Amino acid sequence: MRFLYQHWLSPDCRAVRVVCEEKRLDYEVRVEKTWERRPEFLALNPAAEVPVLVEPDGTVVAGALPICEYLEEIAFDADLPLLGTAPAGRAEVRRLVNWFGQKFAREVTTLLLSEKIDKLFMGRGEPDSDAIRAGKKNLGPHLDYIAFLTERRRWLAGEHYSLADIVAATQICCLDYLDDVPWDKYEGARDWYARIKSRPSFRPLLADSIPGLPPPKHYADLDF
Amino acid sequence: MRFLYQHWLSPDCRAVRVVCEEKRLDYEVRVEKTWERRPEFLALNPAAEVPVLVEPDGTVVAGALPICEYLEEIAFDADLPLLGTAPAGRAEVRRLVNWFGQKFAREVTTLLLSEKIDKLFMGRGEPDSDAIRAGKKNLGPHLDYIAFLTERRRWLAGEHYSLADIVAATQICCLDYLDDVPWDKYEGARDWYARIKSRPSFRPLLADSIPGLPPPKHYADLDF
Repeated sequence: MRFLYQHWLSPDCRAVRVVCEEKRLDYEVRVEKTWERRPEFLALNPAAEVPVLVEPDGTVVAGALPICEYLEEIAFDADLPLLGTAPAGRAEVRRLVNWFGQKFAREVTTLLLSEKIDKLFMGRGEPDSDAIRAGKKNLGPHLDYIAFLTERRRWLAGEHYSLADIVAATQICCLDYLDDVPWDKYEGARDWYARIKSRPSFRPLLADSIPGLPPPKHYADLDF
Repeated sequence: MRFLYQHWLSPDCRAVRVVCEEKRLDYEVRVEKTWERRPEFLALNPAAEVPVLVEPDGTVVAGALPICEYLEEIAFDADLPLLGTAPAGRAEVRRLVNWFGQKFAREVTTLLLSEKIDKLFMGRGEPDSDAIRAGKKNLGPHLDYIAFLTERRRWLAGEHYSLADIVAATQICCLDYLDDVPWDKYEGARDWYARIKSRPSFRPLLADSIPGLPPPKHYADLDF
């Protein structure tokens, strides 16, 4: 069996789950309390971070992008190349993977998740309202950028659905779980996200419900 | 001609330069004052960040990792595969590229460079001594990790020199330019860095000298 060590509201882990679903790869999730720094887990990833994938043959792959690139290499699907096929197109996918996986994460998701969720579950005091305000303010230009791109292309990185869409959508999916996306103000981004939500690969994410923190009603709704 | 838009003390830009050198690709550097947000540059990379590579055919690639992956694809050298050849090995290279390019950068390089250099050149006030102290303190465990890895393997990610070595060395190279690496306390890491410094691909970096900010004497010395 393939094991994915993860957190439920981690966009990085969600991206790996969607890639596995798109490729119809079997896997089992194991929730890892990374802050406990379990020696067995540190042996898998000394960075003490999820996601970590352990393959049936024992191969260990750590980090969202290394895992997604690895899965694309070992389970390439010519009908759905998640990085594209030509070097320039792959570069554009990776640019946007970087944009949403790093820049968006730093400017938006990490601010909101670490204040609202990490502090709640780890008992680290009250959320910092300045950080939450900054995260919410930074979200707008990114949603506009999604609209800008998808007015010019069918998907974020070009005419084909790619890892860029997966990484952007899994960031946004976590924010939407917290009801932090003002969809009515961002129609272009909503149209794109509606197309993502309707993909079978996204269904397991929409079925997630964290004990003590249920999602808002529209979260799993395809017509939101 | 191939153009690399860059900053001189950017580890990301230096990694791209070393990859070009290893592959003997011609390129010309253009220093981009990203903070001026030149419209022509924003058209190349809306993230307003270096490095950006513009190929002779006009292809634009933005971001260190997308550029390095792109160059590996278009100019693959079977005698020097910078990502390795097997998926598990490539995953290990990418894990360590991530480690040094993201984690190390966040915990060490960005703290020291932004306090010491960005503030100096952009007139943003005095360096924050707490941030500098934190960056210096965080450096030690990373240098120990380099020693740990290279006691068990010839290079960081395995028996072969890889992009992981390039990314780690270009981070450290910038710190060494600021004389922030206490080499006498970290012999293992020094042995590895000495091997990197002796590679012809590293010579252009060791010849860098920023006006008004010359490197320390040992910076270009192969026996340091």
